Amino acid sequence: MQKTLNDLFLEQLKDIYFAEKQIYKTLPKMAKAAKISQLKEAFTTHREQTQGHIARLEEVFETIGRGPQAKTCEAIKGIISEGEETIDDFGESEVLDAGLVAAGQAVEHYEMARYGALIAWAKQMNMPDAAALLNETLQEEIKADQLLTQIGASNDNKKAA
Amino acid sequence: MQKTLNDLFLEQLKDIYFAEKQIYKTLPKMAKAAKISQLKEAFTTHREQTQGHIARLEEVFETIGRGPQAKTCEAIKGIISEGEETIDDFGESEVLDAGLVAAGQAVEHYEMARYGALIAWAKQMNMPDAAALLNETLQEEIKADQLLTQIGASNDNKKAA
Repeated sequence: MQKTLNDLFLEQLKDIYFAEKQIYKTLPKMAKAAKISQLKEAFTTHREQTQGHIARLEEVFETIGRGPQAKTCEAIKGIISEGEETIDDFGESEVLDAGLVAAGQAVEHYEMARYGALIAWAKQMNMPDAAALLNETLQEEIKADQLLTQIGASNDNKKAA
Repeated sequence: MQKTLNDLFLEQLKDIYFAEKQIYKTLPKMAKAAKISQLKEAFTTHREQTQGHIARLEEVFETIGRGPQAKTCEAIKGIISEGEETIDDFGESEVLDAGLVAAGQAVEHYEMARYGALIAWAKQMNMPDAAALLNETLQEEIKADQLLTQIGASNDNKKAA
């Protein structure tokens, strides 16, 4: 049977559902490792948002008449394992926060790419409700990435001062 | 010995050097799999650019008095393996191009995150030459991502017409 855009959408939905759940599990480790309070807070707040992202994905599964299903996402596993390596390698160092900012941004960028594609496909398949739900999450990922950029820059300014 | 921002910069430089080499190896498979000529061309052109990115990274290694060195990047391996899975699963289908566009964008976003961090750190360490070289590549990655978005949208319009 010829596969359709709907199949591709479903595959990637399962992928990002797995990814969000992994991120939800990992954020407390990042918050615990972070040295400055602003970064700890950013990871903690983003964990609460991530819970909302998971709930929204479950709603999107509903809009296509499916139960939520996760599919192992090798990409996020790789991105997260690099973040954990940074904690192991730089945990004792003052530059750990810079490494954590970068690790967080790699996660955000992966999500931006995946949500961007899902939104485009939802629109192409005339599924405005799914597109709107996915876009709410995308906007939060973009803001989380911008916040990490700001924290990285202000942390540096403090050290320079 | 306390690790410094310079150590973090070097680690991530090795990571993206590995990633660029993997991307260089993978792009011909993506070009071959693509169905529409515009997408084939985009991957082929980006492969030529990637050769330039590798050469620029070698220059950056030089600016810090190091020989180029790659370090296995689990993130890009995961991202690429997901792209290959898309080719395997959707190779027979009309929607393969949409999947390839998404796979390409996941790669570009990973690179944007990594180059963004490297540029910020190069500036913090007062290494304007390295920052400028990395920024040239970042701009090409951003453009490649935008081109993929356009191809995804125009491919959809053609089908709708």
